[in-house]
Amino acid sequence: MTEPLRLGIAGLGTVGTGVVKIIRRQAAMLEARTGRTIEITAVSARNASKDRGVSLGDYAWETDPVALATRDDVDVFVELMGGHEGAAKEATEAALAAGKDVVTANKALLAIHGQALAEQAEAAGRIIRFEAAVAGGIPVIKSLTEGLAGNEITRVMGVMNGTCNYILTQMEATGQGYNALFEECGRLGYLEADPNLDVGGIDAGHKLAILSAIAFGTKPAFGNVQLEGIQRISLDDIRHASDMGYRIKLLGVAQRTGRGLEQRMSPCLVPAHSPLGQLEGGTNMVVIEGDAVEQIVLRGPGAGEGPTASAVLGDICDLARGSRFPTFGQPAVSLQEAPAAQTSLAAPHYLRLALLDKPGALAKVSTALGDAGISIDRMRQYGHSEPTAPVLIVTHKCTSTTLQTALDELAKTDVVASEPVALRIEEV
Amino acid sequence: MTEPLRLGIAGLGTVGTGVVKIIRRQAAMLEARTGRTIEITAVSARNASKDRGVSLGDYAWETDPVALATRDDVDVFVELMGGHEGAAKEATEAALAAGKDVVTANKALLAIHGQALAEQAEAAGRIIRFEAAVAGGIPVIKSLTEGLAGNEITRVMGVMNGTCNYILTQMEATGQGYNALFEECGRLGYLEADPNLDVGGIDAGHKLAILSAIAFGTKPAFGNVQLEGIQRISLDDIRHASDMGYRIKLLGVAQRTGRGLEQRMSPCLVPAHSPLGQLEGGTNMVVIEGDAVEQIVLRGPGAGEGPTASAVLGDICDLARGSRFPTFGQPAVSLQEAPAAQTSLAAPHYLRLALLDKPGALAKVSTALGDAGISIDRMRQYGHSEPTAPVLIVTHKCTSTTLQTALDELAKTDVVASEPVALRIEEV
Repeated sequence: MTEPLRLGIAGLGTVGTGVVKIIRRQAAMLEARTGRTIEITAVSARNASKDRGVSLGDYAWETDPVALATRDDVDVFVELMGGHEGAAKEATEAALAAGKDVVTANKALLAIHGQALAEQAEAAGRIIRFEAAVAGGIPVIKSLTEGLAGNEITRVMGVMNGTCNYILTQMEATGQGYNALFEECGRLGYLEADPNLDVGGIDAGHKLAILSAIAFGTKPAFGNVQLEGIQRISLDDIRHASDMGYRIKLLGVAQRTGRGLEQRMSPCLVPAHSPLGQLEGGTNMVVIEGDAVEQIVLRGPGAGEGPTASAVLGDICDLARGSRFPTFGQPAVSLQEAPAAQTSLAAPHYLRLALLDKPGALAKVSTALGDAGISIDRMRQYGHSEPTAPVLIVTHKCTSTTLQTALDELAKTDVVASEPVALRIEEV
Repeated sequence: MTEPLRLGIAGLGTVGTGVVKIIRRQAAMLEARTGRTIEITAVSARNASKDRGVSLGDYAWETDPVALATRDDVDVFVELMGGHEGAAKEATEAALAAGKDVVTANKALLAIHGQALAEQAEAAGRIIRFEAAVAGGIPVIKSLTEGLAGNEITRVMGVMNGTCNYILTQMEATGQGYNALFEECGRLGYLEADPNLDVGGIDAGHKLAILSAIAFGTKPAFGNVQLEGIQRISLDDIRHASDMGYRIKLLGVAQRTGRGLEQRMSPCLVPAHSPLGQLEGGTNMVVIEGDAVEQIVLRGPGAGEGPTASAVLGDICDLARGSRFPTFGQPAVSLQEAPAAQTSLAAPHYLRLALLDKPGALAKVSTALGDAGISIDRMRQYGHSEPTAPVLIVTHKCTSTTLQTALDELAKTDVVASEPVALRIEEV
């Protein structure tokens, strides 16, 4: 184990640059900890001439990531390009085919093609590591796959998109609306090129699908994640939730139920005084529950150069130390197909309706809910100067399908001006 | 890697029984995750006839832990006896000498003899793992040693004794005094046989010494931990702290300073709204700060059958998967001697004095502080019916040595009835 571990790094954006900086700055420390020198052999990026604030002159430059991934002098292909199709996927497959281990930060690639890639890797005796793909600097993949390996995992929850959490906490803190904060995030560079990846919950959904696969020994199934974004959350929702002792978070939940594997990423109300409720700004949090460990909460920066590079380096050091096990913690061929739960476990729900000012309107609402078997815990109607009145309802426990039935019935009446906002209240 | 991993388990108290239960109940899951069967070959405990609620008939019984540790049919010696001398130490040394790997939950053993044991293990090519020794079910050793291996660690902090945290949070919640809650903890079985291990900060100090060694690449040096227990914290202190927006926690802090390695375990005031401030009951929390990752917060149960067994199983699964690296994350012979910092970094302090009712008493206090160069941020004197008046002072930033100088001067005057309570205010 005294030979150097040789890296080929594809993608020199924020994360790639951060990785190069650490390897240059901390060479002695990394060698002390892994017993080997960690060397960068070659790099690759779209723009060769950009000044990244770090010297790249020691490394071979490849214009083609596939060529980089298959170089004879590369042991580990470090994929930091992103995107679930195109170059990232091709180069990862090529690296595995060429007998390289892979370290990646690419959540979309693993959520969508993780099963095929894991099977390819394991057939070839190679390793794929991806700590940086989920929750930035938090060692959550490691904790779940290794530290909690003695547990039957019962539930995984997480706030895993910093941009959404920033918007939601800033709405409460500053009284600005969603649109203003969305624009601010654009200016600050907090949004992906396709902002729907963030505010639509897709990015966080990718992360949840990866955690689910490890937690429950199932094939990653991003297509089965019930996704709902934060675009329709209003200041009123934030304030009502706060009045009742809750905060709204884009929360991912994965759990086995009697009816299949439930995976959802959606805005939920969580108790304001719970660790999840107290999470502010761009910070991420993952909650893992297991039959032995009870509950573990992990909190840290979900993005950024240093934290994400820290996660990539953790994987690289593990490979340097000789740690080797299957991608999702057990052999890919042994992962089960998990049927998606068609409904979620019952929970109280928060409803905001825009009620038209007609006689009997409230009665129609309570009839629609009552006919579906949903009882009302609290209801408030607010004064208004518009043609619609905001009505706020908290239901007793009901499933998402029951609630949808009631809302479908309600839509057939003539009393609701726009599609209701319905948010689950999660007692975390 | 298809041969079974064979365990010899010494100690069948709460944790040992929990480990046996998991291995029996989850055999298929553990095999799927590690690719091997995990078998118990032999066990050992003081009392062979006790009913532990789990069947032990499949395992050989050894009365002597050394005999257990050196059996030919044992690959890993699992030491769950506790105690830093006697049987635990002898059996661990014997296991290493006989070519076994070791998994232990023994914080005292590692904090005090960790350097010698690590050197012995590494000379013999053996592994010592000890996730369960620090913060129960939280995978903090793994996070620090592996997940954050790319970081230069700058500070480690933690609330790592559940009993102390239970007492301190219950004082605030119920208004009961320290003594009443100490007795309650005894009745509930929350106290070690020597309660001073808990309330004196020794147990938590052992854990801090272990984390320090990994974090800073230094030899474990429990003797250099500045220890202070919670025995002198009064309800008044709890209330004053709360009034100022703080909570009192038995907080461990380890950091490199220009004057050496600072390691202290002492009651501190932390902001009530920080994650550490919000930690209630027996839960543990560890905060790790690194140059790349910024700050990670890990929270979970610090003790109990399931959580501690979960940590032991994590180590066992790692060994089954073939993970092998030095005890404290780098070779023991490369760990540095770290001189202990003789003073802590400057911080504001909270002082509670019992002032005798004499003219000029307050003036003498402010003179003693002022002569040492300590300026006062806030001072309050409370009404009283006793011969002494409680005086509460918050200082501006000062070091512990400067403060001690002032308190020594104050002791020479005739105005203070008892030894002052001085607590650091930690901005975490």
